[in-house]
Amino acid sequence: MVQTERVRGFRDVFPEESEPRKAIFEKSERAAEAFGFKKIEMPSVEYMDLYRSKSGDELVSQCFAFYDKGGREITLVPEATPSVVRMLTSRKDLPRPVKWYSFQKYWRYEEPQAGRLREFYQFNGDIFGPDTPEADAEVIGLALSILDSLNLRGEYKFFINDRNLVEAILRKYNVTDNERAFALLDKFRKVDRATFEVGLESIGLNASEIDSFCDLIAMEIPMDRIAEFFSSEKLKGIEAPIKERLVRLSKILVEYTVENVFLDLSTVRGLAYYTGVVFEAFDSDRKFRSILGGGRYNKLADLYSGQAIPAVGFGMGDVVLENLLNDRKKLTPSTKSVKVYACYTEPGLYTEALKAANILRKSGIQCAIDVSGKSFSSQMKEANKEAATYLLIIGRKEVDGSFVSLKDMGSSVQEEIKLNKLSQWFLDRAK
Amino acid sequence: MVQTERVRGFRDVFPEESEPRKAIFEKSERAAEAFGFKKIEMPSVEYMDLYRSKSGDELVSQCFAFYDKGGREITLVPEATPSVVRMLTSRKDLPRPVKWYSFQKYWRYEEPQAGRLREFYQFNGDIFGPDTPEADAEVIGLALSILDSLNLRGEYKFFINDRNLVEAILRKYNVTDNERAFALLDKFRKVDRATFEVGLESIGLNASEIDSFCDLIAMEIPMDRIAEFFSSEKLKGIEAPIKERLVRLSKILVEYTVENVFLDLSTVRGLAYYTGVVFEAFDSDRKFRSILGGGRYNKLADLYSGQAIPAVGFGMGDVVLENLLNDRKKLTPSTKSVKVYACYTEPGLYTEALKAANILRKSGIQCAIDVSGKSFSSQMKEANKEAATYLLIIGRKEVDGSFVSLKDMGSSVQEEIKLNKLSQWFLDRAK
Repeated sequence: MVQTERVRGFRDVFPEESEPRKAIFEKSERAAEAFGFKKIEMPSVEYMDLYRSKSGDELVSQCFAFYDKGGREITLVPEATPSVVRMLTSRKDLPRPVKWYSFQKYWRYEEPQAGRLREFYQFNGDIFGPDTPEADAEVIGLALSILDSLNLRGEYKFFINDRNLVEAILRKYNVTDNERAFALLDKFRKVDRATFEVGLESIGLNASEIDSFCDLIAMEIPMDRIAEFFSSEKLKGIEAPIKERLVRLSKILVEYTVENVFLDLSTVRGLAYYTGVVFEAFDSDRKFRSILGGGRYNKLADLYSGQAIPAVGFGMGDVVLENLLNDRKKLTPSTKSVKVYACYTEPGLYTEALKAANILRKSGIQCAIDVSGKSFSSQMKEANKEAATYLLIIGRKEVDGSFVSLKDMGSSVQEEIKLNKLSQWFLDRAK
Repeated sequence: MVQTERVRGFRDVFPEESEPRKAIFEKSERAAEAFGFKKIEMPSVEYMDLYRSKSGDELVSQCFAFYDKGGREITLVPEATPSVVRMLTSRKDLPRPVKWYSFQKYWRYEEPQAGRLREFYQFNGDIFGPDTPEADAEVIGLALSILDSLNLRGEYKFFINDRNLVEAILRKYNVTDNERAFALLDKFRKVDRATFEVGLESIGLNASEIDSFCDLIAMEIPMDRIAEFFSSEKLKGIEAPIKERLVRLSKILVEYTVENVFLDLSTVRGLAYYTGVVFEAFDSDRKFRSILGGGRYNKLADLYSGQAIPAVGFGMGDVVLENLLNDRKKLTPSTKSVKVYACYTEPGLYTEALKAANILRKSGIQCAIDVSGKSFSSQMKEANKEAATYLLIIGRKEVDGSFVSLKDMGSSVQEEIKLNKLSQWFLDRAK
């Protein structure tokens, strides 16, 4: 017998899981389309060089990389952005802004664990061209709309920050090693306070500075309080353009929601390439990893092509999102579809029943039919097992009269419907 | 600068291509759902062993295979069936028939050429359980329905055969090397007649047998003529059960179409694992490779798991299908969606325009808005360039009166619509 094990960290998706998962894809894509983002699709394989210089050692070490038959090192794509930017810079004819989305698979060779698989989907949305708070807000607004369309309003917290603001605050505290400070900030909500304070000391803060700094970054400031916060004593000395840009962003974001979005100075995001606004969403209990994350990255296109193209975007994986939706019982199969099961009372009437089934199928109505030569009573049992909403029965009298008997499995009401009215009967009820 | 070449044989799909491509995925999946098939998803990576014993040397040599960090040989999946059967046999609890479909990516390391890419999508549909002509017809009916839903009726020819019938015919001609005969038959429409006849001679046919054999396999017999064909002198001596099964299949298939489906004795399909009915569809001019292909494979589950599970299914790639649809001008972006472009007459009114845009977006109506700080006249130019169907205008008087001015870009008619009626206005027109 053949070896038939599944590869570790990979997943078989059976119908009972794939049915509810459809909502994740459909609703994300529908929201992106409503915002006027256009779909692209990237290859699943890229040259390894695409990641070496910008993606950081950790990601490079997680690549499913191998040599092709021509001896070049290629890899299963570990993230979206390098490919998106490669596609963008390969086309100089595109009018800007370019608003693109994608929703495809990525691969990382890491230890499988909660919220992490070696193969996962990621939604990605980006705007290339304008370096404006309106563009930042458009991308964040899309992220919020996707979460809300999945009925997650109230179940998530959305944290926003700006790397320029953090750098200005670090300047106020005379910190010079920004890279180390960012790595430390990234740990603020993951380590205990004492450990964090030791870190602050090591980048040069004294005891009273440590207190004021911690107070500052522990705050979660809702979007309708940003203007007030920036005019407070705490942020005295921060450059006006930095404040103004965030105030502007906050005033746009209240159009989406005032309850779920916060300025959080400890949100810095790990990736080195962000240059401005950064953001992340977590479930409100912080039970799971981040649901999505993104920010502004104005220098990446330049690195790849010598073209300076401002960019803002985000990625959202399917694994945490599916876990969260299941945890909050928000992921259930869509009830949209009527299911019909077509039965024939004797073997000779199979093609007649199929004729009726095909009328429904052509109208997009789901209709199953026995193909095993089951008896009439076994077909009815099968219909029950399949949770059919209607039983369509074809017997001698139905064939002779060109009608079907249709039994509502909920109410047990049965009626006779002419074949030429069958589709319309269902379409009328679907309204 | 970073190396930003695309890997050879892989494809970047830009919005102008991805928009029309959506029809291929949506219509195939909708047809499968209407037939009561359920969606599954398989990993993109499997152990190489899964293919070694059954898939044939050619396919094995085309695998994107590599060693994982644990030293095991894995590969990007080159075809659907081994994974589908692996998933099926891993679940002993599934009531049969199991009707599954999938539509995902596969990879083959072969020379890129017309109709072949190294990365491609394939729709796959299978029924496991019943070994009946009804199950064969259900799978073939699904394939026909997908082609028809893509407006390809009249553009394709669908060829059906049964390996058992071919073997019976070969027995009549005293051919003993079935494998060689199948390989030869597979070439019937690809090589010239003289070459083919040399082949027939080499498997033992004499001159008069060659003539009668060629006459037989050159026929294309429509489904409504199968019964007549099987009662003809030509097929005398073929076992009754073989004939009866094909006659039954033909009588079901006429429910789908009588014009496009033919019995063709030269259709044998390359893969060694087929055990009964086999089928293939080509564009009517035979300009492209096969659009889809499949058949009955009753022994594969046994090979993998020791479970005897009859199976019938087919695969349909996206590359030939997209080429054909483009060639016949059947692949155009769906015109379903109204596009609105929201404009603001002065920069201070951006958030007011966004408010109106968001009302539409929440109802699933596509609405773009400038995020670059463009002037009002530049926004209107942008709306034109984007081919907006409606221009939504927010100025002072609109804000003061809680309405929007909406201009139909086709008729140039402009009207004022209250914000709280805006969604309904569009939904009414969408009917």
